[in-house]
Amino acid sequence: MPIAVYPGTFDPITFGHIDIAVRASKIFQKVVAVVAENPHKNPLFTVNERVEMIRQSLKEIPNIEVMSYGGLIANLLTDLHATTIIRGLRALSDFDYEFQMAFTNRNINTQAETVFLMPNEKYVYLNSTMVKEIGKLGGDVSGFVPAHVMERLHNKVKR
Amino acid sequence: MPIAVYPGTFDPITFGHIDIAVRASKIFQKVVAVVAENPHKNPLFTVNERVEMIRQSLKEIPNIEVMSYGGLIANLLTDLHATTIIRGLRALSDFDYEFQMAFTNRNINTQAETVFLMPNEKYVYLNSTMVKEIGKLGGDVSGFVPAHVMERLHNKVKR
Amino acid sequence: MPIAVYPGTFDPITFGHIDIAVRASKIFQKVVAVVAENPHKNPLFTVNERVEMIRQSLKEIPNIEVMSYGGLIANLLTDLHATTIIRGLRALSDFDYEFQMAFTNRNINTQAETVFLMPNEKYVYLNSTMVKEIGKLGGDVSGFVPAHVMERLHNKVKR
Amino acid sequence: MPIAVYPGTFDPITFGHIDIAVRASKIFQKVVAVVAENPHKNPLFTVNERVEMIRQSLKEIPNIEVMSYGGLIANLLTDLHATTIIRGLRALSDFDYEFQMAFTNRNINTQAETVFLMPNEKYVYLNSTMVKEIGKLGGDVSGFVPAHVMERLHNKVKR
Amino acid sequence: MPIAVYPGTFDPITFGHIDIAVRASKIFQKVVAVVAENPHKNPLFTVNERVEMIRQSLKEIPNIEVMSYGGLIANLLTDLHATTIIRGLRALSDFDYEFQMAFTNRNINTQAETVFLMPNEKYVYLNSTMVKEIGKLGGDVSGFVPAHVMERLHNKVKR
Amino acid sequence: MPIAVYPGTFDPITFGHIDIAVRASKIFQKVVAVVAENPHKNPLFTVNERVEMIRQSLKEIPNIEVMSYGGLIANLLTDLHATTIIRGLRALSDFDYEFQMAFTNRNINTQAETVFLMPNEKYVYLNSTMVKEIGKLGGDVSGFVPAHVMERLHNKVKR
Repeated sequence: MPIAVYPGTFDPITFGHIDIAVRASKIFQKVVAVVAENPHKNPLFTVNERVEMIRQSLKEIPNIEVMSYGGLIANLLTDLHATTIIRGLRALSDFDYEFQMAFTNRNINTQAETVFLMPNEKYVYLNSTMVKEIGKLGGDVSGFVPAHVMERLHNKVKR
Repeated sequence: MPIAVYPGTFDPITFGHIDIAVRASKIFQKVVAVVAENPHKNPLFTVNERVEMIRQSLKEIPNIEVMSYGGLIANLLTDLHATTIIRGLRALSDFDYEFQMAFTNRNINTQAETVFLMPNEKYVYLNSTMVKEIGKLGGDVSGFVPAHVMERLHNKVKR
Repeated sequence: MPIAVYPGTFDPITFGHIDIAVRASKIFQKVVAVVAENPHKNPLFTVNERVEMIRQSLKEIPNIEVMSYGGLIANLLTDLHATTIIRGLRALSDFDYEFQMAFTNRNINTQAETVFLMPNEKYVYLNSTMVKEIGKLGGDVSGFVPAHVMERLHNKVKR
Repeated sequence: MPIAVYPGTFDPITFGHIDIAVRASKIFQKVVAVVAENPHKNPLFTVNERVEMIRQSLKEIPNIEVMSYGGLIANLLTDLHATTIIRGLRALSDFDYEFQMAFTNRNINTQAETVFLMPNEKYVYLNSTMVKEIGKLGGDVSGFVPAHVMERLHNKVKR
Repeated sequence: MPIAVYPGTFDPITFGHIDIAVRASKIFQKVVAVVAENPHKNPLFTVNERVEMIRQSLKEIPNIEVMSYGGLIANLLTDLHATTIIRGLRALSDFDYEFQMAFTNRNINTQAETVFLMPNEKYVYLNSTMVKEIGKLGGDVSGFVPAHVMERLHNKVKR
Repeated sequence: MPIAVYPGTFDPITFGHIDIAVRASKIFQKVVAVVAENPHKNPLFTVNERVEMIRQSLKEIPNIEVMSYGGLIANLLTDLHATTIIRGLRALSDFDYEFQMAFTNRNINTQAETVFLMPNEKYVYLNSTMVKEIGKLGGDVSGFVPAHVMERLHNKVKR
């Protein structure tokens, strides 16, 4: 019963993340999207907001669950009796960071296997940081995130 | 019953390929290693030799099968009722080629999902072309391929 | 009266090339698509076929002309009283080759300025080599090239 | 009457930026260098200082104007009736950031076309951050920026 | 009598740094490991702690000395009558930063030659930042740093 | 008495190769430039011509010798009682090939250490293949190779 963990900061979730989660849900029996708390990254949204936005975005997919976690993903895998980590790999990903993370997780937990999926080419340049910058400058982000995320983003940056 | 296809030229199979195949066999119920015939690549080993070397190298893994194929992998997936393609992604892979292949396969068969796995860091610089060049110059390839492949390589380049 | 030259092998023209040509035609008063003869690249289509396929694909754009050339693009610029070279730059382009070409052209003709445009993200993984490989294996290339190119490709690979 | 916008942080302008601006001024009838205010990047120089340094550096080029802007470049284009954005693309640029910006601008304003130019190879490794670090450590930056910028930099880091 | 300088932040030293230092010590008569003070990088360990950890890690290698420095490495070379800078170049290094540093040092001191060495492939994904993140989350870093560094790291993050 | 080996195809030697050889000659007591025979690369110049062009280009540097070799560089090192291999690393080198070669050489001969040097930024985009293509099309290569190489190139491509 292969469970796959899909970790990220998701600050906020974008169409690119959703695309990867849906693809993973077709390969694995259960996918657990995990919001890495990452307080040192100084996220715009709280952990709870990030979890809620993912839940709302993926509520149609029955075999996806959402949770948050403050420790090492390699250890979470053990707790969940899982061995697979999902990561999206865009043409212009930070390969260095992705490969280091995968190596590190495998070094800490020899069972931890990272599986990289490729998003739809529409999302090849899309990331959360850009979405937040556009939102702050009053731009239209409807092409990048669902409507409910856009609304939360506007409320957040208005404050 | 998720079947995953692991295509390649395998000219010849290296410890890097074996590492990826074993990892895939732990995630998927059945892995089918597929020798792409690729006659225009002018391979050193015949299709049959390449198939045999894979069989010999992976005979301990019960859920791996080996076959050859001369058509589009995207179409083979349909024949095998499979949707997943396995590829190893080394730090220094030809990302361009890998991503183009994945995109192309998805474009031809919208169900075709490519899953990239990362080999052990020992194999991060290893590829078949380098192995063949060393073999031709009389070098020792025992760190790169199994003994039975090494023997075939020596016989091939002696001729 | 800025003229821009858009050189390439165009073997055959794809939707990615068409996308770049149309973008260039909006910036420059006249764009000259130049088929580099490149006999050593052993192209599938003759120079004339490649010119015709471009003409057919871009016939709706009044300020694009098509020609072939066997010499150095840096010298062609002088003959055409042009100073600008157009190149598409995909996320996964061969940057090495592109930058070397741009440097070389500028070294030979100090007026030669290369301008890189980014295609629609739909075409970020698309190239002519992949299209030809799919065509040879009997795959459907209608998502990659216009219908008239697809027809020529099928006729060519049948022979 | 093609106007091109050349946005950047220019903190401070270097010989690499000047090289790109001069190249753009030969292709486009008017080039508007735009200082992105970017307060969250915590620039060393104020917006006004950055504007003045560009003006001083490019005063010999009649068809270049300088301004600052705090919003989205994609929106500024509309205000200026412009459609072209200029960016320098060094061998070692942050392609990821550059392509994301270009994609984002095009997504917000479908007319926004980013044109990448290649600086002289002398400037292929030059960037503002390195210049500031050297200045802070008392090093000689006369090979990287004009004399008037060097003077301002020395005054700034002395304080 | 060629002296080589091996600069870095070493916050903290890892098995990857040790690997490079040992390799350099076999090529050059004397290697001086230099802790760049880099206060703006906000290091976890003080300069003294970083110097001590290197000394402890490399005490078996007689021709390696350790010091700290707050200025430009290009100037330190002159003081030490040295001309060579050592840097490790991992498959996934930040080539941009490494090449810019090398260029900058050469620009300031025309005698400054940077020599890049390749670590053992075991360390191709290893860096100090990742080690610190794992340490903070309570993970096991014994595969990445010597025991005495691990102990200091645990003490540091407990506080 | 550290000897360094500088291997390459040198088909033909360019200003970039000369730049690296001179830099290496300042670090190592003796540098041996080694023409890899590489018949399968189908070089334009014979082994002897390539050796002669290097000798002529570097005759002013007393501690550089030139030879040709048809075997594995890792084995040549043993014969020459050398442990160091020199390679130039341009911003746009084929890192994959360079790192694989370095890894392979170290795997065959554990003493073989590859040292990468960075050429002058003027040569960052320069390679032999581009020089030959320009020569064949009648272009001016005086900015890329010494006069005696240019003459040989013209004679060669005339035939």
